[in-house]
Amino acid sequence: MAVNLAPPRAEDLLSIAGVRLGTAEAGIRKKDRRDLLVVALDEGARVAGVFTRNRYCAAPVLVCREHLAAGKPVRALVVNTGIANAGTGEAGLAAARATCEAVGRALGVEAGAVLPFSTGVIMEHLPVDRLEAGIPAAVAALRADGWAQAAAAIMTTDTVPKAVSRQAVIDGRTITVTGIAKGAGMIQPNMATMLGFVATDAAVGQDALRDLVRFVADRSFNAVTVDGDTSTNDSFLLVATGAAGNPPIVGEGTAEYTRLAECVLEVAQVLSQAIVRDGEGATKFITLVVEGGATREECLRVGKSIAHSPLVKTAFFASDPNLGRILCAVGNAGLADLDPAQVTLHLGEALVAEKGGRAAAYTEAQGQAAMAPAEITVRVGLGRGAETATVWTCDFSYDYVKINADYRS
Amino acid sequence: MAVNLAPPRAEDLLSIAGVRLGTAEAGIRKKDRRDLLVVALDEGARVAGVFTRNRYCAAPVLVCREHLAAGKPVRALVVNTGIANAGTGEAGLAAARATCEAVGRALGVEAGAVLPFSTGVIMEHLPVDRLEAGIPAAVAALRADGWAQAAAAIMTTDTVPKAVSRQAVIDGRTITVTGIAKGAGMIQPNMATMLGFVATDAAVGQDALRDLVRFVADRSFNAVTVDGDTSTNDSFLLVATGAAGNPPIVGEGTAEYTRLAECVLEVAQVLSQAIVRDGEGATKFITLVVEGGATREECLRVGKSIAHSPLVKTAFFASDPNLGRILCAVGNAGLADLDPAQVTLHLGEALVAEKGGRAAAYTEAQGQAAMAPAEITVRVGLGRGAETATVWTCDFSYDYVKINADYRS
Repeated sequence: MAVNLAPPRAEDLLSIAGVRLGTAEAGIRKKDRRDLLVVALDEGARVAGVFTRNRYCAAPVLVCREHLAAGKPVRALVVNTGIANAGTGEAGLAAARATCEAVGRALGVEAGAVLPFSTGVIMEHLPVDRLEAGIPAAVAALRADGWAQAAAAIMTTDTVPKAVSRQAVIDGRTITVTGIAKGAGMIQPNMATMLGFVATDAAVGQDALRDLVRFVADRSFNAVTVDGDTSTNDSFLLVATGAAGNPPIVGEGTAEYTRLAECVLEVAQVLSQAIVRDGEGATKFITLVVEGGATREECLRVGKSIAHSPLVKTAFFASDPNLGRILCAVGNAGLADLDPAQVTLHLGEALVAEKGGRAAAYTEAQGQAAMAPAEITVRVGLGRGAETATVWTCDFSYDYVKINADYRS
Repeated sequence: MAVNLAPPRAEDLLSIAGVRLGTAEAGIRKKDRRDLLVVALDEGARVAGVFTRNRYCAAPVLVCREHLAAGKPVRALVVNTGIANAGTGEAGLAAARATCEAVGRALGVEAGAVLPFSTGVIMEHLPVDRLEAGIPAAVAALRADGWAQAAAAIMTTDTVPKAVSRQAVIDGRTITVTGIAKGAGMIQPNMATMLGFVATDAAVGQDALRDLVRFVADRSFNAVTVDGDTSTNDSFLLVATGAAGNPPIVGEGTAEYTRLAECVLEVAQVLSQAIVRDGEGATKFITLVVEGGATREECLRVGKSIAHSPLVKTAFFASDPNLGRILCAVGNAGLADLDPAQVTLHLGEALVAEKGGRAAAYTEAQGQAAMAPAEITVRVGLGRGAETATVWTCDFSYDYVKINADYRS
């Protein structure tokens, strides 16, 4: 029961010159489902990524970091669902490397030019033989318009595939950005992981691409939360093929960079918000805007403190304008010198709290009207600066407990 | 449905010479319930406390801090339930001060010698007139054996009163420690607050008492969590009347201090664990022992990361030995240089994970046996030092969502 989330229409997804995608049924954990995706990148593509900070990061994440650190061209991505290859020790690392070798052989590129991604059950070993056996079929299926099928192939507990395209004009050329993602937080049992893959045909310098992936991740995938758990496999990868033929975008200060960043950010925000809309048991989509902070980081802390409070999330589920719980979460964000007298709180358009207490004009009816819809905006003003941050989250329902408690029983 | 928690028997609660307690029905929010407690302390009693770090801390907390900072003798405590007097701005401060004045008048002591405590709904104003009207009855009811009635009077959403006594022999004298507490985390709607009051007849120097209250709080009330929300009113107060006539205990290094600390800690742990056992919707009582840390603080972080993970808590509810979720929470604790290869995980007596993966000898049957009982112990070894910390928590059930979502509807 995703919140206002329709599946993408294949005809709305635009190909990216230099990127081909193919899927196959490898039978990693379940039969009769496409659980393997290979993405082939033409020569010249640049890649930058951000990965989970969980110390139990999965073997494929370690291998991705290693291959990216080597600085060589990336020519392929390989993604499997079913098993996360996390909590698998040395054997897991060997399995991730073997996967890269198999894809490299099939595509005629080095193993070091392949980035592996896994999502699924933690602490079980990847059946490399079955995965390898599926690679030829995935490679044979490679096609430029494979985005919709790719979005479906990387789903685990997602109920809706997540994919979107946007275009922008840069230097007189139309550039295209297309991305796919799968859910996290909505981590079922051991079904870990948020994965996001976004590609553009724009030409972008390596340093600019690295800046861009962090900028975008911080304002999209790192700004959404379902239940506060960072998985062992979270990865967000940005590919720039350069096929659009624009003069390479090199620096943060330029108009071209800004235009591309806006376009990539829009794609990443649609995808990351889709993850929240499809959060386990979600019935509400909540936008938390924190303004007036001394730093963006402290605004994020306040937003996440609200987004992670089970008391706040159950109140959203109940459509209950429970101001005390929200203010309590603001007070718990760890801003040691926050002055509650300066804090303002809006539910929707209504000013509900100020000067350390309830706003004089606030009525319960206003609060109830703001909490009733499936999409709710909460605005917190910290009154201590000009910085801002937005966090997106969902509510906490009976179904969240049901989904996560019933899985293995 | 508290987990293995029986109400205290009045005959098991020992009086503390120098402490008298009286309750009354003030009608703060509901009729026909004792919602007001006055505790009178004889001259010579020393007091030390720790309070919530929530920046939206309640008016009574601000007044408590102010009165304690003045360094004058404390002669009375006053506690009301029903309304927390939090999120009430300047009017709330005036109400807390008026409460102290009223108790001071009734007992013939200065207002500055009274510490106020409130628990209940946030963002509503304290009806000071009704509270003041109840004070004479509470004062008239003061008695040394009023502990059981006091424990009942401070309950809000608690289903079981929480009180316990212990004794120790120090310098040849029997000293007694008695305490009461009410629940937190189990914060219903706006029903905020953990309150703990522990008194001893031991004579303790002021500096030693201040050290003691922090030492004990860190290992009891600060080491339990139901849902991770720190309320606006949390307070833990330790009173030493000195009536036992022992030579005052002055320093951390002494055998007397250690003996008293053990006794007070035991009382505080029983009380704080009772709060978890009575957590909203709790069906399991979980002890998380984190060992082998470089610092106690990092052990606590790992323990709380596990205790706050909704995925872990729903797995406990389901009696599901979901190792991946626990390891994921360990990895999320923010220990940047944690080496997963050194981490060990035990469920009950069974070694279930080591060397970055599942332990070779572990069987699912072992895990299921460990997760089945109502009391579960999880041990995490970090393999990087000699420090340790223990955190107590409960599971996350349908009833948690039901209790917190249904309250105002």
